[in-house]
Amino acid sequence: MTDRREMRELVTPARAREAIGNFEAPAGTETVRVERASGRVLAEPIDAGIDVPGFDRASMDGYAVRARETAGAGEMDPIELRVVDRLAAGERPETAVEAGTAVEIATGAVLPEGADAVVMIERCEARGETVAVERAVAPGANVMSAGSDVAAGDRALSAGTRLAPRTIGLLAAIGRETVPVRTAPTVGILPTGDELVAPGSELSPAEGEIYDVNGTTLANAVRETGGEPLRYGILPDDESEMRETLSRAAAECDLLLTAGSTSAGSGDVLYRLVEANGELTIHGVSIKPGKPTIVGRYDGTPLVGLPGYPVSALSIFRLLVGPTLREWAGTDRDAATVTGRLARTERYDEGRHRAVPVGLVRDGSDDLLVYPVDRGSGATTSLAYADGVVEMAADTRRLDAGETVTVELFSTSDRPPELLAVGERDPGFLAAIDGIDRTRYRTLGSTGGQRWLADGIADVAVVTGENSFESTAETLGCWTREWGLLLADGIDVDGVAALADGDYRFVNRSRGSGLQEAFEAVIDGSDDPEGIREKIDGYGIGTHGIESAARRIERGSADVGLGLATTADRLGLGFQGLGVQPVSVFAAADRVEKPAVGRLADRLDDERLFEGLTGYAVD
Amino acid sequence: MTDRREMRELVTPARAREAIGNFEAPAGTETVRVERASGRVLAEPIDAGIDVPGFDRASMDGYAVRARETAGAGEMDPIELRVVDRLAAGERPETAVEAGTAVEIATGAVLPEGADAVVMIERCEARGETVAVERAVAPGANVMSAGSDVAAGDRALSAGTRLAPRTIGLLAAIGRETVPVRTAPTVGILPTGDELVAPGSELSPAEGEIYDVNGTTLANAVRETGGEPLRYGILPDDESEMRETLSRAAAECDLLLTAGSTSAGSGDVLYRLVEANGELTIHGVSIKPGKPTIVGRYDGTPLVGLPGYPVSALSIFRLLVGPTLREWAGTDRDAATVTGRLARTERYDEGRHRAVPVGLVRDGSDDLLVYPVDRGSGATTSLAYADGVVEMAADTRRLDAGETVTVELFSTSDRPPELLAVGERDPGFLAAIDGIDRTRYRTLGSTGGQRWLADGIADVAVVTGENSFESTAETLGCWTREWGLLLADGIDVDGVAALADGDYRFVNRSRGSGLQEAFEAVIDGSDDPEGIREKIDGYGIGTHGIESAARRIERGSADVGLGLATTADRLGLGFQGLGVQPVSVFAAADRVEKPAVGRLADRLDDERLFEGLTGYAVD
Repeated sequence: MTDRREMRELVTPARAREAIGNFEAPAGTETVRVERASGRVLAEPIDAGIDVPGFDRASMDGYAVRARETAGAGEMDPIELRVVDRLAAGERPETAVEAGTAVEIATGAVLPEGADAVVMIERCEARGETVAVERAVAPGANVMSAGSDVAAGDRALSAGTRLAPRTIGLLAAIGRETVPVRTAPTVGILPTGDELVAPGSELSPAEGEIYDVNGTTLANAVRETGGEPLRYGILPDDESEMRETLSRAAAECDLLLTAGSTSAGSGDVLYRLVEANGELTIHGVSIKPGKPTIVGRYDGTPLVGLPGYPVSALSIFRLLVGPTLREWAGTDRDAATVTGRLARTERYDEGRHRAVPVGLVRDGSDDLLVYPVDRGSGATTSLAYADGVVEMAADTRRLDAGETVTVELFSTSDRPPELLAVGERDPGFLAAIDGIDRTRYRTLGSTGGQRWLADGIADVAVVTGENSFESTAETLGCWTREWGLLLADGIDVDGVAALADGDYRFVNRSRGSGLQEAFEAVIDGSDDPEGIREKIDGYGIGTHGIESAARRIERGSADVGLGLATTADRLGLGFQGLGVQPVSVFAAADRVEKPAVGRLADRLDDERLFEGLTGYAVD
Repeated sequence: MTDRREMRELVTPARAREAIGNFEAPAGTETVRVERASGRVLAEPIDAGIDVPGFDRASMDGYAVRARETAGAGEMDPIELRVVDRLAAGERPETAVEAGTAVEIATGAVLPEGADAVVMIERCEARGETVAVERAVAPGANVMSAGSDVAAGDRALSAGTRLAPRTIGLLAAIGRETVPVRTAPTVGILPTGDELVAPGSELSPAEGEIYDVNGTTLANAVRETGGEPLRYGILPDDESEMRETLSRAAAECDLLLTAGSTSAGSGDVLYRLVEANGELTIHGVSIKPGKPTIVGRYDGTPLVGLPGYPVSALSIFRLLVGPTLREWAGTDRDAATVTGRLARTERYDEGRHRAVPVGLVRDGSDDLLVYPVDRGSGATTSLAYADGVVEMAADTRRLDAGETVTVELFSTSDRPPELLAVGERDPGFLAAIDGIDRTRYRTLGSTGGQRWLADGIADVAVVTGENSFESTAETLGCWTREWGLLLADGIDVDGVAALADGDYRFVNRSRGSGLQEAFEAVIDGSDDPEGIREKIDGYGIGTHGIESAARRIERGSADVGLGLATTADRLGLGFQGLGVQPVSVFAAADRVEKPAVGRLADRLDDERLFEGLTGYAVD
């Protein structure tokens, strides 16, 4: 790490946004069919080439007449006219209306020569060959004159109009089949990193491989702004390969978006390549997350280098790149925002502009609550648990609970969840929420669930162990689950003493989880707790997921793991029971009326819910 | 019209919406690639099958160590360790960290066996074969443990999630390449009417033909709700053909949407067909516009018959059908709405639920103003001038100016215009706004322009004739335009007397237009005004558009028309000048700071603006 370089002077987010905004907009036009033009932006004004309607048109069913002949007509003294023709919509009038005559006419039909008004059918009495008109009409009555809807030469739609069903209808009315629209800006998507593997391919965790997230996320985010993403695969941290791909993308795109490889470590070749083959305008932005953002050009094409962590990359895209892309595509003045009440005070002292990832939940009054989601920018799940970001200026040190804040949503497609559940991981609870749309289930352990419920954020909490829940919360359901040791094929361990004495590679659960606490209690009840803890090989290896230990046994990297009877059954592992543990679900008092909470209560009342789950029982 | 039938009892809009909502939802699932899944709705919950990360991962550049060995380390008394390996992201660790050793490690790399923490690079000093660690770390420091981001067995995403870039990123992280999503409901689009012609085809106005608007509008509106429109062309009002097409569509679709042919006139066969081949549940809704709406089934398939007028059809779709389609598609809880301040009092006494078409404009403070657009539901242009509807309950007789109202937008793609111009039709003004995106130009004559400006709705007014504008409005520009007689090939008319005396088919402009008023003034100045008016053949034929008269001459249905020199020049017609007329553009005092008004002022300052317009002059 001898050639390690520091970043240059950090610039403000506003300065970075301005630099990106100053890139020249691509100026392309293409012709598309009106039928599929929704969401596209007109490149030119459209003027009507025809009158709509193109003829004087009956706007009522009735009789076409000469208005002056109806003067004085009334119910008591109708005026009788001879009916000389019948006209339906889409028919060419063959007979003129002359003195003493009328033509029966349907809505939409062409007003025949000689007529200048229509008497509506309700004011006429048909008498065979004649009609008795019972009301006088003025010239033009019930007639839509030619061009009165759209007149030839009128501006039908302005340039810059984002086409929608109604405006597309107007284009149809003037007979347009195709329209010129602005070309979508093309954006090259270039995630970098030797450790990245495309989703769907085989993954080798032992070699430190992870699935690439940014390529997929950014492609979809670009498409949402109205841009056209072009994928160039995953760039390895290899200088010559990177140079070749960047050159190709620069020739084909209006903007290049890389992700990762932008910090100043020795493995980060991107910024040096940009310096050598273009210009590096900005290297580092004073924002958290997102500091290692770069802005420049490669072979003359604008380039923004986003940080590698998915939440950072999407936040920076949202704040700095999105506005310019939407302007180029002409799709929107602003991206989607919502306002809500902050549920928890958020403090920050570093004096750096911050984009705080936040989640949303509706409270009992259907108002939006906003809560900070801090799992660190490296966590992919911040993507799943955060609905958007709240910006905190560099000189803002706290946002108080109860304050109204504006949330910049990651996407216009995103919707807040209908149900927010926090607490212990439990397959029984998973089964319960299977039938409830848009549930967010954050697994932060029993104490996490209790805290989030007490803080007025979570709708429901999932708690294991004896019920020590002191609040006004309502119990929606409780059951027990059997837990114990998951066993690899051929392994037989009958308790914690045998586990300590044998030569087994064990996998524990993470500290604070319900299973780990139950396991501790069993060890504490044994003859030699300290000795057992000392002797279990892997006692310190805490895994997070309810299935993580089982997956390790499946992969052959462990022999015994802590887990549930139902997991052993589902994944075909051996099992040695060590106990049963109660699980309870509580709802916050002010949320019991929420429709999704009601659905959950119904699900939990259903006795068949746990039928497929080995070791589950409802009292 | 002997078998004319009255509609059955009208039902409330709420009842009609409920009937449509009670149709059974189609229950289909399809598998799509994650890459293109944005906006689609998950059909099933997705649980993580792997831990993310799949290994203990360095979250900083630095040195992987045994935490306990760093106890007591500080800047003054660093602890020296032997560096036994270097690890980059994506590399498999080959060397374990044993007592007294460390491994140099990059962010994202796999923590080697034996190590349980990372000391960040800034707290270390490399000394060739060794490293001096200047800070003590706890076990787990700067390490993201396996599964800490997403744990195997965790619920990644709930069923019903509308996928967006961030949630798609999560699917990528757990390696999903495809996901099960809800099938888009298929909706058959069936506009009916003998007079309808598909846009792009030849139109014969003499036979009363008009372009079909509803097919295109509804197809796009359906697509926007998340449905898949299927087109079946235009249905003629012919019973057997209609029956055949409806049967085919019923077999292929989840819902049928017809437009037109739903009122009770003799030409309206649709409702009788529905009665004969299915059931007619609702025939008539107490709402304006949209009374002749029908709801029922055809061959068992749900059917909604929308009225034929485009604005009515789209309003009813928006209010009654859209909510159910969005629910079926799972796309949205609600459609797009905005709130704004009503600019004019709206009265209505008929006691029928009303959907008032309204336009939007931003006032000088960037607040949304809402103004009713009443051109009658038959006008296609209501589609272009209205951004949405405001609902008025049956018992609401007035909405007061200044009241805050909720506007149900016709589309999520719609955006309010940036500039609202009202007034006289003028090609010079058209040239000025050519360069200004999202301009709405309503041609309601000079008095209309002045009224809309005085009412605080229009940003700018276009006014012809001498400036009689009394207000605080600011003049943005003024010019003169030459006007006179447009002449067919071979026709030569040197003034109004010659026009009256000769045998010409004349086309006038509509009353109240600037040109018609100038023409009246010239006739008034002649020797025999009354005689001239009497003798001109077509004096009473008022056309709306600036080019409507010229188009009639082009078609051979007129010899002489009232128009502008520039129109004659543009369309290659002869021209006899009768005068020049001043045109002025005024901006409302509180709108001069609007960006689009500023752009318009700049355009009007440009001397080259009228260069291509014959007969135009700036003083």
